Amino acid sequence: MNNMETIIEGKNIIGTKLSALGNSKFKAIDPSTGNFIPGEFARVTEEEIAEIMNKSSAAFEIYRKFSGIRKAKFLEAIAEEIINLGQTLIDRTVAETGLPEGRIIGERGRTVGQLEMFAKLLRKGSWVDARIDTAIPSRQPLPKPDLRRMLVPIGPVLVFGASNFPLAFSTAGGDTASALAAGCTVVVKAHSSHPGTAYLVASAISKAAQKTNMPEGVFSMIFGNGEMAIKIVEHPHTKAVGFTGSYSGGMAIFKVATNRKKPIPVYAEMSAANPVVILPQILSLKGDAIAEGLANSITQGVGQFCTNPGIIFIIKSEGSENFLDSLSKKFELISPSTMLNKGIHKAYQEGINKLSTTENVAVLSRSKQEADYSKTQARPTILKVSANTFINNPHLSAEVFGPSSLIVECSTIKEMAEALNGLEGQLTGTIHATEEEINNEQSIIEILNQKVGRLLFGGYPTGVEVCDSMVHGGPFPSTSDSRSTSVGTGAILRFVRPICYQNFPNNLLPEELKNENPNNIMRIVDGEYTTNSIN
Amino acid sequence: MNNMETIIEGKNIIGTKLSALGNSKFKAIDPSTGNFIPGEFARVTEEEIAEIMNKSSAAFEIYRKFSGIRKAKFLEAIAEEIINLGQTLIDRTVAETGLPEGRIIGERGRTVGQLEMFAKLLRKGSWVDARIDTAIPSRQPLPKPDLRRMLVPIGPVLVFGASNFPLAFSTAGGDTASALAAGCTVVVKAHSSHPGTAYLVASAISKAAQKTNMPEGVFSMIFGNGEMAIKIVEHPHTKAVGFTGSYSGGMAIFKVATNRKKPIPVYAEMSAANPVVILPQILSLKGDAIAEGLANSITQGVGQFCTNPGIIFIIKSEGSENFLDSLSKKFELISPSTMLNKGIHKAYQEGINKLSTTENVAVLSRSKQEADYSKTQARPTILKVSANTFINNPHLSAEVFGPSSLIVECSTIKEMAEALNGLEGQLTGTIHATEEEINNEQSIIEILNQKVGRLLFGGYPTGVEVCDSMVHGGPFPSTSDSRSTSVGTGAILRFVRPICYQNFPNNLLPEELKNENPNNIMRIVDGEYTTNSIN
Repeated sequence: MNNMETIIEGKNIIGTKLSALGNSKFKAIDPSTGNFIPGEFARVTEEEIAEIMNKSSAAFEIYRKFSGIRKAKFLEAIAEEIINLGQTLIDRTVAETGLPEGRIIGERGRTVGQLEMFAKLLRKGSWVDARIDTAIPSRQPLPKPDLRRMLVPIGPVLVFGASNFPLAFSTAGGDTASALAAGCTVVVKAHSSHPGTAYLVASAISKAAQKTNMPEGVFSMIFGNGEMAIKIVEHPHTKAVGFTGSYSGGMAIFKVATNRKKPIPVYAEMSAANPVVILPQILSLKGDAIAEGLANSITQGVGQFCTNPGIIFIIKSEGSENFLDSLSKKFELISPSTMLNKGIHKAYQEGINKLSTTENVAVLSRSKQEADYSKTQARPTILKVSANTFINNPHLSAEVFGPSSLIVECSTIKEMAEALNGLEGQLTGTIHATEEEINNEQSIIEILNQKVGRLLFGGYPTGVEVCDSMVHGGPFPSTSDSRSTSVGTGAILRFVRPICYQNFPNNLLPEELKNENPNNIMRIVDGEYTTNSIN
Repeated sequence: MNNMETIIEGKNIIGTKLSALGNSKFKAIDPSTGNFIPGEFARVTEEEIAEIMNKSSAAFEIYRKFSGIRKAKFLEAIAEEIINLGQTLIDRTVAETGLPEGRIIGERGRTVGQLEMFAKLLRKGSWVDARIDTAIPSRQPLPKPDLRRMLVPIGPVLVFGASNFPLAFSTAGGDTASALAAGCTVVVKAHSSHPGTAYLVASAISKAAQKTNMPEGVFSMIFGNGEMAIKIVEHPHTKAVGFTGSYSGGMAIFKVATNRKKPIPVYAEMSAANPVVILPQILSLKGDAIAEGLANSITQGVGQFCTNPGIIFIIKSEGSENFLDSLSKKFELISPSTMLNKGIHKAYQEGINKLSTTENVAVLSRSKQEADYSKTQARPTILKVSANTFINNPHLSAEVFGPSSLIVECSTIKEMAEALNGLEGQLTGTIHATEEEINNEQSIIEILNQKVGRLLFGGYPTGVEVCDSMVHGGPFPSTSDSRSTSVGTGAILRFVRPICYQNFPNNLLPEELKNENPNNIMRIVDGEYTTNSIN
């Protein structure tokens, strides 16, 4: 924490410029002590927003035309500059989030890995989904024109940093990386829970932009409250929004964006309880191991993961008694830990209270240690309810963000199916079963796959692999747009639109659509996948 | 028109059932005479809507799991049954739209062609964008799971038939074909301008569904007004909406859909003026030919095409005088023709009046023949305005649906660029230029490609090729969602979402993701495109 005052200047970053025109300022709080952390952050003004959006729009006109390789070099430079922040970044992030250093180092690795993954995608270049239908001048009754289409960036994107992944889903997180990769310029609204972290990372992006000769305004970052962020959602230059956070926050943004004179897409990842189904055979065979896996998954990162398993469906049996006993014992031994901020901590307390005061909902087990509220601690808690009560109390299926889970005890597989049928859209669904069981109970898969973006056989949903085939998304209300993923290479598809060129001279076409196929990308030419050039 | 009374029963089609519970009925009008056409159509009731949506949802649970080949056979059967309607369909469509028989026969060909194109896409199967990342159990610090993703259908889709393409954008048009191809069930709201046509085509779909053993409710069609359609937009079972029509109609649907408790995507193709830019060199070289091409394009189908060229930008010069003279003479000789219905006709008159009564806007030329209003005729009209007036009167850039176009005369290329910069989003933009000119004036391309879904070099925008690379879409307000196309194979992507399977047993995976790759589709496996199986 040496020199933190001088390192954290706390200004808005407008392209390469630091700016603090406003008088409204705030400080970061260390949730593990409740104390202020050195450094003061200036909330953005309307004047600054106007400047940022004009720069972002002007930069877009240049940046969108850059080659994949040029954008890749920018992303790689961002990764490098984040690493160059060294211990300063780690210390500040730990102080602002209460998360342990090991986790933050791991998350930094993931953040850098995401940037490098998109750089690799750009270097390969095939992601633009190029399609070419060549001309047939002799066709009757009308000649067939030459048509070529590809995906192009949509325009300046507003990204809301998320509190729970201060690096991987925040300033240089998946939304920023995928939008920049798509060819969009980016404005980040720093999360007020980790402003110093945001500032350090934004400075790294700004430095990388200068080193790789990106246009001024390709990236900006603001500090501010919700009202100020909404001004950017409303701004005519803003063409899309990425958000990870609460249901109420996501829907507030969604409403503004869709009620604009010119509506824009919002990718809000909001709320999920991530059901886990455990069938009886596997429960009696591996109940202990599953209890251990679940206890880890539920309390990992103080339960502050979007994919945290919040509801566990079991069928009452001898095996289930042992399982509950095992899970209970494990929870008793897990210590309370510091949550990200007071708001999240309060919501967790309220969520647990609402569950535990519902008639017929029991606290099955909780950490033996009481939570220390002065340290913003959450007490790991397992609750239990019968399927019947669960079905008749829809509020029981709402996400409680934190280290808790609700066991739903069903009497039959049929009742389990009914309980699952009542669930809303989810990011993930997990089924633990023996091969025999899963083959007999495929209807359970069928119910879940209509509710989720990712379906797991065995395992735990909290590990979100960053790759081509990941879907971190799902039906409403887990996200505002089930057609998208916010993790993996597919995330780039959120910030593009197709454009078609008809009968264009070859020299004026984008590289991706030229006859020569200079980047050797995969294209669909006259209906066939090929990397060949066109004669 | 033989036997039309008995052929047109005028009931709502609920799966295989005909239903007319309501008392509210209407008749079709022949716009070329203003007379009623035999047949009466029963508007849907709330009770019927409930039954339709329950059937559609239940059918979806079955239909979504059908193989590509099975769905392809259904689409092919629809094409066959439409052809089997023979002259009855042609006669009814001509009577209800005032469009000539040759056009309707051509449009039927396109409609059938679209269905067959999607069938072919399904038989090939690669459209699902399958991506597989295989497991690495030995990876440190954590094993890498096996992850496989593909696109799956989103749920029941509501399609609004469009008036201007009574076959190709209506009951069995591109929206219906692409939604059924995606694996969604479909409910069509018949356009009230051609209810008999809609009924005949819906009967053909229903017959095809029975012949190919589709689940009851895979397709339904209702008659009704806007209020009834909105009830379906609001219905919880409805998961997406396809619409082609007016800006006001599209936005009304968009508002309802995005303000639902669970918002759903709306693909509304609404309004475009489709700018055409003609640079001076080409104008002096080929002014006559371009004038002829434009006159045909502007008045084709009585100007009732979404891609009708509504604004033509030229630079004042000697060549431009000749061009205007040539275009004027051609318009004088084009006869007035019957528009689709009284509403469209009225809007056309009002649009022309609004333009021609704007100060400094002149009527350059019009058909020598007066329009016969009793035949719902529109009089082809060309108007002219200076770029300066155009820039200062934003209402001049609004679409006037019908056989008219506005010439914007610019004094310099700079002024032309300024006028183009003020345009809203468009379906198409067209540039006529010599190769030399286009290479010198690339900034004009850059302005247009930020505004449009399809950019043409030469030619005319009214021919919309149905193929892989077509984009019939564009930035707002040309559509409500610039990320989509409603024509070509890309249209299927509107009605899907990705799903990811983690560590799933091979036998429980969808065919598209199984190790064996039984359908031999193109997949991205561990980062590489391949049709190979996985060992």
